[in-house]
Amino acid sequence: MQQQQLPSLKDIQDAYKRIGKMINHTPVFTSRSLNQITGAFLYFKCENFQRSGAFKFRGACHAISQLLATQPVKTVATHSSGNHAGALALAAKLHDIKCIVVMPSNSPKIKIDAVREYGARIVFCAPTLQARETELERVLEQTGAAFVHPYNNFDVIAGQGTAALEFLKELKDPDCIIAPIGGGGLLSGTAITTKSLYPGITVYGAEPKGADDACRSFKEKRIIPSVNPKTMADGLLTSLSERTFKALTTFVDDIFTVSEEGILQAMQLLWQRMKIIVEPSGCVPLAAVLEHIELFSKRKTGIILSGGNVDPEFFSGGHA
Amino acid sequence: MQQQQLPSLKDIQDAYKRIGKMINHTPVFTSRSLNQITGAFLYFKCENFQRSGAFKFRGACHAISQLLATQPVKTVATHSSGNHAGALALAAKLHDIKCIVVMPSNSPKIKIDAVREYGARIVFCAPTLQARETELERVLEQTGAAFVHPYNNFDVIAGQGTAALEFLKELKDPDCIIAPIGGGGLLSGTAITTKSLYPGITVYGAEPKGADDACRSFKEKRIIPSVNPKTMADGLLTSLSERTFKALTTFVDDIFTVSEEGILQAMQLLWQRMKIIVEPSGCVPLAAVLEHIELFSKRKTGIILSGGNVDPEFFSGGHA
Repeated sequence: MQQQQLPSLKDIQDAYKRIGKMINHTPVFTSRSLNQITGAFLYFKCENFQRSGAFKFRGACHAISQLLATQPVKTVATHSSGNHAGALALAAKLHDIKCIVVMPSNSPKIKIDAVREYGARIVFCAPTLQARETELERVLEQTGAAFVHPYNNFDVIAGQGTAALEFLKELKDPDCIIAPIGGGGLLSGTAITTKSLYPGITVYGAEPKGADDACRSFKEKRIIPSVNPKTMADGLLTSLSERTFKALTTFVDDIFTVSEEGILQAMQLLWQRMKIIVEPSGCVPLAAVLEHIELFSKRKTGIILSGGNVDPEFFSGGHA
Repeated sequence: MQQQQLPSLKDIQDAYKRIGKMINHTPVFTSRSLNQITGAFLYFKCENFQRSGAFKFRGACHAISQLLATQPVKTVATHSSGNHAGALALAAKLHDIKCIVVMPSNSPKIKIDAVREYGARIVFCAPTLQARETELERVLEQTGAAFVHPYNNFDVIAGQGTAALEFLKELKDPDCIIAPIGGGGLLSGTAITTKSLYPGITVYGAEPKGADDACRSFKEKRIIPSVNPKTMADGLLTSLSERTFKALTTFVDDIFTVSEEGILQAMQLLWQRMKIIVEPSGCVPLAAVLEHIELFSKRKTGIILSGGNVDPEFFSGGHA
């Protein structure tokens, strides 16, 4: 399979049939007061209520089911600082196979705890991409585990695309959809699904200004790696891959960058007005709306709240 | 109308018809991991997603609609430290009448802000029941406003009973239902609805050990006022009224008291596992399950999460 091959709408629909019974069919929420504050008509796809606490479970679950369909895999492995790790660990447990995760030593505690609880083995490494890749290579060689990349993986992207598939069944005729972008798996799947079904819907990505490699890559039409990103949105630190870069440049209309204050404001609004917990990465699309009020005025806007894995101590950690 | 008269199931069903278009039909959530932790089958009625952030909107909205059906009321007034104040303020705004709320000066900021935002006038008083009642008397005399008591009110109790009505449409054949108890409006409405429809369902109340007047009143079969209650559950500090005492002693099977640690643990679990914000008062029923694991083992248990009005700073306020 080529490194740049992307799933089609059909692949995403097939993925949905495969994982439909294992995933949570997450609800779509609205909020009168957030509509009043923004002047937009907002619809929130609550992937913070997905199993393992993030959309990542869709892709991880699909990737494992596809691996098992073709070969007798006994162990999967990955490197991840967070939600992909927890999602793969849970998906492996549910498929009754083993999982090894290489995690940077500075990963959020709630995410490390989740991986442990799902019964995966954790191998800690230094918090650099190089250390992660080197350590993973060693693990793969020693164990023969199958590598499930967090986003540069055909079946993972197909799985992530099922969130938009569900969303668009419920959300009729939106003007636009916004998803956060880190490595680009969610936005790729979202954009493929949306543009294949309804080419007229605008698809936006949103990322922190402090980790704006996707926006820069998008504008300069070449992959610019993320170097020393700095943001509270710990799920959006990674660089694009060949596959997700291709999906973005083919299907996405624009990418917003947002401030840290905007992310925090969005997180507080989701708490105070909607009574839900969304991790900083998942708040980035709402931050984009808050920072572009005029652009979204009166537009029917779908927002993917990508995950909810954040410690209760977050607001006492100097962020609030 | 007698001080002890209680609404019947028919009254509650009528209330539901009257307020059905104004309230949020809140979802019922389940959680695999909370079922695993408790060994019970838990169903959560999410009144933290109700308008104004608490079930109180049901009763306030119904009381105002009933007042307006019989007299040309221009202003309503009440005393409340929190959710009833916000709920009455919003219900008054939606019915296009004025609202005055007497609030103790130490009420939570998020609840004071809500009342202000809904456009009601706040009159602050000293944080004692006597000061609240004296100040309210003055307001009623000066303005001719109609008093809507937070719970010793026929129409308010009928409105609160609609939460269980919705819950029991969705939750088939539960073994038991638990609601928190402060003044007793929610538990009264819940118990009347539940026992009238399905006498075999056990109805429990739950309150903090530090504000255990309802449990003591229930056991001693006389109203024992709440004196110097001490708990983080700021919505459960009030004493029973004649009406709610009668409902409890007629329809409720038992009342649990829970520790402050239990409340905090429940709140953290709802955050970490379900990604939702529930204020301390609303966490008391789950705390009761956590502190009586054997009693609830394998029982299909309905829990009313009564509200979600808590500041993001809660976990940095020395509670966590």
